[in-house]
Amino acid sequence: MSQKITTKEQAKAVIDNYDYFIFDCDGVLWLGDHLLPHVCETLDLLKEANKTVLFVTNNSTKSRNAYLSKFDKLGVQGITKSEVFGSSYASAVYIDKILKLPKDKKIWVLGEEGIERELHELGYTTIGGTDPTLVEHGVHFDHDHPLLTELDDNVGAVVTGLTFNLNYLKLSITMQYLLKDNKSIPFIATNIDSTFPMKGKLLIGAGSIIETVAYASGRQPDAICGKPNQSMMNSIKADNPGLSSKPSRGLMIGDRLNTDMKFGRDGGLDTLLVLTGIETEQGVLSQDASTAPTYYADKLGDLYELFK
Amino acid sequence: MSQKITTKEQAKAVIDNYDYFIFDCDGVLWLGDHLLPHVCETLDLLKEANKTVLFVTNNSTKSRNAYLSKFDKLGVQGITKSEVFGSSYASAVYIDKILKLPKDKKIWVLGEEGIERELHELGYTTIGGTDPTLVEHGVHFDHDHPLLTELDDNVGAVVTGLTFNLNYLKLSITMQYLLKDNKSIPFIATNIDSTFPMKGKLLIGAGSIIETVAYASGRQPDAICGKPNQSMMNSIKADNPGLSSKPSRGLMIGDRLNTDMKFGRDGGLDTLLVLTGIETEQGVLSQDASTAPTYYADKLGDLYELFK
Repeated sequence: MSQKITTKEQAKAVIDNYDYFIFDCDGVLWLGDHLLPHVCETLDLLKEANKTVLFVTNNSTKSRNAYLSKFDKLGVQGITKSEVFGSSYASAVYIDKILKLPKDKKIWVLGEEGIERELHELGYTTIGGTDPTLVEHGVHFDHDHPLLTELDDNVGAVVTGLTFNLNYLKLSITMQYLLKDNKSIPFIATNIDSTFPMKGKLLIGAGSIIETVAYASGRQPDAICGKPNQSMMNSIKADNPGLSSKPSRGLMIGDRLNTDMKFGRDGGLDTLLVLTGIETEQGVLSQDASTAPTYYADKLGDLYELFK
Repeated sequence: MSQKITTKEQAKAVIDNYDYFIFDCDGVLWLGDHLLPHVCETLDLLKEANKTVLFVTNNSTKSRNAYLSKFDKLGVQGITKSEVFGSSYASAVYIDKILKLPKDKKIWVLGEEGIERELHELGYTTIGGTDPTLVEHGVHFDHDHPLLTELDDNVGAVVTGLTFNLNYLKLSITMQYLLKDNKSIPFIATNIDSTFPMKGKLLIGAGSIIETVAYASGRQPDAICGKPNQSMMNSIKADNPGLSSKPSRGLMIGDRLNTDMKFGRDGGLDTLLVLTGIETEQGVLSQDASTAPTYYADKLGDLYELFK
């Protein structure tokens, strides 16, 4: 049974008990472009207590630098690049550190700038992605596009993620690389969220787009680099040896049971669910022991409000 | 074990044994825009022998009228609309005859003109589909599009099929209707072919596009109106009572084991596979009794060449 954080003592105990605080962003720190109450104060409180804070996001459309701009724009000061883990960065790290793909190999991208930038920072060349020639004909299928008619034999991995600028050409070229060389080119998904929340609506998520090319090629991704998959947690732990040796000193804070809470739990961390996102109190209380978060709270800022 | 048609006696027996000849089109009659050898002569032979011929296709981008134009353009004369069954027509028949959807209900279409035309012929109003406002911004997601922000409460069914003019907006609106009213609006797929062959390449098929909105909405289609699903066979039998009472008098001719041959077999028909499409002789001979076609031939025109 999850414990609700409602008293100063409980808030203090949560802060004292953990060294690492890993935050999901949307639904926890902000909702779209609106910062939630007392988020800055809560983060300041943790930093003053010498806690390590890390921000994870499955949104692969933005690079870590773009995320830092978002923190800045919303008035959250002092966040550093090493504190941010996006699924696009985790995918780049996977290709570099796990696959150890040589740097002279190219990567076909079905996705947006976030994926391209993180791969470029690690020294890789990408094709596809935001290449303007892929959308020259807009939604009309350009079946003579050279990137479809002549596949690049130097492509050594395919990274797929959310893109709002989708067309049949991009999907079809992605499919060609997934079928190429007897389906042996590694197939990486930034994340497999089925939906993407925007302005109160659920829209098409990365996982739903990836499902298209997976079904078309008869393949499933070889790696999924977003929550709740542990590829992302492994990246985080690799960069934070203290967390790696004692995951129980870490607390995962998020707004979704089936991604954030599962992600933390599977990684050996305790979990705190906030009700500012997608879940309801009733939903939390209906979980059995295997899925109930350790704690829950109406909002993240309660830690500060109760503690101060 | 499948019998290969190589002699005049075998060809004559095949023609004599059946009253109904159901043909898949692409890979059997033609390859893309090239008519295969002696197709016209074979069809003439069957018609002279008073056989019923029917043409089925999973390609939902074309209406029956558009298919008749294609027959005409390739020089195949005398085909009538009642001899053609496309997955778009089968979907329209399903909505009209099986769902019995009132004619004042609208239908949201993710797909092309073929679907719209068949639904209009049966008296329905469609929205979505080829509406030019859905592609006004090309591939750029127009999240303020009125069809996304204001759903039509009069939509009583969603029909999904192949479209080359895909964008995030069309997928996202389709998803809204699949989620609407507690996921109760019927979800119809024209067909679920994962791939679409074009100019020697396998591109994204209807089933792969439908998989996106299925995954996003957490639903599976309530009906699939293309081969090998029997919804299409039921339409054909409804229009051909003789076939309905004696399916063993029908022969399904196609180029794919897992769609055409399965479609015929599941419908109680005998089957003939031609090697002008996707399958090889080795592939046919490796089938066990449960999947082997009754007959196979190098090409459809062999029936005429051997018989004459």
